This record gives sequence, structure tokens and C-alpha cells, in this order.
Amino acid sequence: MKLITFEKNNVQYLGLVKSNKREVVDLNKLGVIEKTMLEFIKSTTGEKLKELSQKAEGVVGEDIERVTLCAPIPVPEQDIICLGINYMDHAEESAKFHNEKFEGERPYAVYFSKRVNEAVPHGGLIESHKEIVDSLDYEVELAVVIGRDAKNVAKEDAYQYVFGYTILNDVSARNLQTRHKQFYFGKSLDGFTPMGPWIVTLDEFNHPLSLKVQARVNGELRQNSSTDKLIFDIPHVIHELSQGMTLKAGTIISMGTPSGVGMGFEPPKFLKSGDVVECEVEGIGVLKNIVL
Amino acid sequence: MKLITFEKNNVQYLGLVKSNKREVVDLNKLGVIEKTMLEFIKSTTGEKLKELSQKAEGVVGEDIERVTLCAPIPVPEQDIICLGINYMDHAEESAKFHNEKFEGERPYAVYFSKRVNEAVPHGGLIESHKEIVDSLDYEVELAVVIGRDAKNVAKEDAYQYVFGYTILNDVSARNLQTRHKQFYFGKSLDGFTPMGPWIVTLDEFNHPLSLKVQARVNGELRQNSSTDKLIFDIPHVIHELSQGMTLKAGTIISMGTPSGVGMGFEPPKFLKSGDVVECEVEGIGVLKNIVL
Repeated sequence: MKLITFEKNNVQYLGLVKSNKREVVDLNKLGVIEKTMLEFIKSTTGEKLKELSQKAEGVVGEDIERVTLCAPIPVPEQDIICLGINYMDHAEESAKFHNEKFEGERPYAVYFSKRVNEAVPHGGLIESHKEIVDSLDYEVELAVVIGRDAKNVAKEDAYQYVFGYTILNDVSARNLQTRHKQFYFGKSLDGFTPMGPWIVTLDEFNHPLSLKVQARVNGELRQNSSTDKLIFDIPHVIHELSQGMTLKAGTIISMGTPSGVGMGFEPPKFLKSGDVVECEVEGIGVLKNIVL
Repeated sequence: MKLITFEKNNVQYLGLVKSNKREVVDLNKLGVIEKTMLEFIKSTTGEKLKELSQKAEGVVGEDIERVTLCAPIPVPEQDIICLGINYMDHAEESAKFHNEKFEGERPYAVYFSKRVNEAVPHGGLIESHKEIVDSLDYEVELAVVIGRDAKNVAKEDAYQYVFGYTILNDVSARNLQTRHKQFYFGKSLDGFTPMGPWIVTLDEFNHPLSLKVQARVNGELRQNSSTDKLIFDIPHVIHELSQGMTLKAGTIISMGTPSGVGMGFEPPKFLKSGDVVECEVEGIGVLKNIVL
């Protein structure tokens, strides 16, 4: 089941994409009273989702091509939790770019956060901030949306706390990321978080996940990996973080990116105005954005 | 003017501490309709604040000793922005603890973030998370509350965007902070953000600030510095961040801590259950908490 946030006359609505992949049904028309995806995530259950999905099939929806998509969670309630260097090949290219020694497999995950004033929808613009950024980069990532408050969760129970998945482009200003030492600022500029096009609910996936993850810039394949190459997988991350930090419903965790980002090439292939970036995760779709 | 969030029968209210420092006036009784400090900050102006302050003096308030304080912003809308190693003496002790070379003055500020599911009020408990934390530490900090959306702000205009100041204890799990490489997780555990006791509005301070900053553990003076020793001051930070990242009204920026934290001693003086931590910033007050 694909859930979207969409816009009509400056009002946001929640929608469900029917199984024909071409029609969108407004969730309000199915009796849902929540107005935002965050409210919906917090109030819903797997049972209710199934019901809605069945109901939707009997309703005539709008043509998805005629609907203006927003990011599925346009304004996250807290910063997005991100994993750093969570694919081995990216760990290696990153160390090289920063003139650091490549340490091999790390025993512990690297977590940082990304402030998102407003997420960029599928089709939206990535801001390039030319006055302060000289090394704009892309990072395709699988993002996990937490469905209910998670505290002290065992690895084997982790998926019970997952609402669904979406795609996130962890746009990064490498010069800021490097010079401010911690990743935060270089990851958190306005217009740096394309997310979407939708959330696909958990029931559509087999676990453990084995999904192709790809990024293309102007049609050129740059990143090409699979979630089965994650160093720290979803159960590990939910277990580890929730031991000390309650992951509230609506929390977004972005699982890190494989090799092939701009800084990984010699010379680097950073983004420039007009570039078209497509981030694809198997089973979810393609998140396409243009650099302003 | 001191603004508080307080609780009665499980309902939160906004209050103003009168100039006698002993009475609290419920802002609703002065005609304020906003229910939370964040809403109030977003809707108010300096002019309106002055009016409220004058009105309050003519009203009989409640005894401040009989009021249950909450953190002034109990649930921040986004993660708190923190500065790392922003006092030279702390930069030195931190490098030593982590067996890193002390680099001297850094040309760029270090920014990271701290997730706050719920801030701990004055008098509240610091969670010690003994299962995963073996090196619980305190950090007294001056925290800046942004009053209106700040984008591309010049240094000389920075204070126009400040609503007021409060005190923050940036409680840190040194073992997690170190092993996960980025500071984020070790700073973001539940119960790791004492904040308060109140917000003191901008008009009560002379700028540039020169405020004593102190922390005491069980009465022993551990940190003792002044905000005039900040490496990167408030105008620098608001200017730098707002060039790329809109600082929304209600954003909290914690300015970093001076030397004298637990990891700075040999052997380290980490916190243990029952310890009483007092964080004091001149012109604001004392934020006192007990370690669970």
C-alpha cells in the first residue's frame, strides 16, 4: 500500500495509491479524519490499513499524474536520524576523500541527524546554496518510518515498530560537512532533503530486506547496491537506539548510502544547477529531483 | 522578564514571574490565548512582552514555591542545535580525554544536534541508563531561544532574532559519544536534557553578553567560566547557520560548555545516582537536577 501526501489549492491531503498504480483515493473519503501523515501514522494499525486498502479499490480516484505530490511527511516532528558510512564500499570512498585512513568494519554504527524544515517532494528542487557550498552531493538511502513509540526493542521484534519505507536523498555539502567536523550542518541546509514519492507500508516487503538501491545523475548510473549490504541492518539500529532513546512514532531513520556518491570519483562529480538526480529503491519507486 | 511553563492537575500553563521574584501570573489571565511556549514565542513581539510585564505587576499571582515547573519548552519542535568545544579550555580537556591531538583554535564552529523527546524541568531527574552508559557527564550551557524565523541574518542584526535565554545541561554519555563517532546518540538519550528553570527575555541583558557560567556537583564547583570566553559568539552562530538553514522561531541553540566536565578530571569524575547537579548562568538562575 502506497500512501502519499498531496496538495490541492494549497491544502494538503492524504492519499492512497490504488493497486492499478494510476489512481489516488483521498483518505478522507474513506472515513479517515487525520489531516497529516504524522497523525495518521500515530493513530492507525495494520488491521485498519488493510481495511482502507480494500475500501479504496471500490472507489474511483484521481489520476495520479494530475495530483501535486508533497513529501510523504512534509515537516518531520524531529530531526531525521541518519546512519553514516553504513555500506563498506562507501566507508572506503569517504575515508579516501577526507584523507583519512580506512579503518575497515566499524564495531559501532555512526549516527547523526539532519534537520528538515521542509522536505522536498518528488519532482521538487534541490537548493544548491552556491554562496556557501562548493561540493554539493547526493546520497540515495532507504528510509524507515517508525509506526509506534519504540523503547527497549529486541532485534527480533524490531519490524513490529516499522510503519513503512520511503526513499531519501541525503543531500550533503561536503565542504561544510568537513570543516564543521560533525556532519550535522552540512546535511541540514534548506532544500537538502528530498523524500518520497510515497511511503510503502511494511506488509509489501519480505524481511530481511534485499532491495536494489540506485542513484542516477542525468541518466548516468552512479550508485548501485542493495540493502543486503548494509553493515548495520534495521533490527540492529532499532534495537540499539531504542535502548536509550525512545523512537517516537513518526521518527524517520535513514539507513545510509552505498558507494558512488560524487566525492567518490576522481575528480569528484559534484552536482550542478540543472542536474537531474534519480534515487531508486526496489519495491518503493523513483524519487526524482532537479538541482536549482 | 522570566517566562515559565508550569503544571497544575496535569495541564500545562504559561506563566510570568513578577519582579518580586516570588509570584507567578498565569499568562491566560492577562489575555494571552496561546497554550504553549512555542506558540507564544511565535506570536509575540517585544512591545507585547512589555505590556504583559506591566500588566502582571498589578495582578496577584501564585507563590512560585507552590508551582510545579516544567521545562520552559517541554517538547522542542526540532532537535536542539548544539555547539561542540566552543570554549578553548574545554577543547583542550576533550582532546586529552579522547587521546586526540589538541589542535588549538578551530577556524570553524562544531555543530551537532541533540534529540529531546521531553526536556527535564528544574528539579527533575537525569536518567543514568546504567545498562548502556558507564560515563555519565554534565555540561552547563547558555541556550539561545530564537524568536522569529532567521534566514541570511547579518551578524549585526543577530540579536533581533533572539527571544531570550535559558540554561541547558547537555548531559552526555561519553562512551556512546566516542564509540559512535558522531556526538548525536550519546547526547540524545531520554532524560538527558535538563532545561530551565525559565526563559529570561532578551531585554534583561546587555550585549555582548558577559555572564558567569558555573556547574556544581554535590556543591563542589566544577565548571567556572564566562560567556565572554566563547570562541564563536551568538552573532557568529546565528549568522553562519542562517546562511543555509532557516532557524525557525522556537529553535534552541546551546552554546557549548567550558572546561571542568567530568571527563576533564584525572581520574574522571562522572555522575552517579543521587548526585545533585546545579548549572548556573548569571542573569538567568540555577538549574538543579538529581541523577536517578
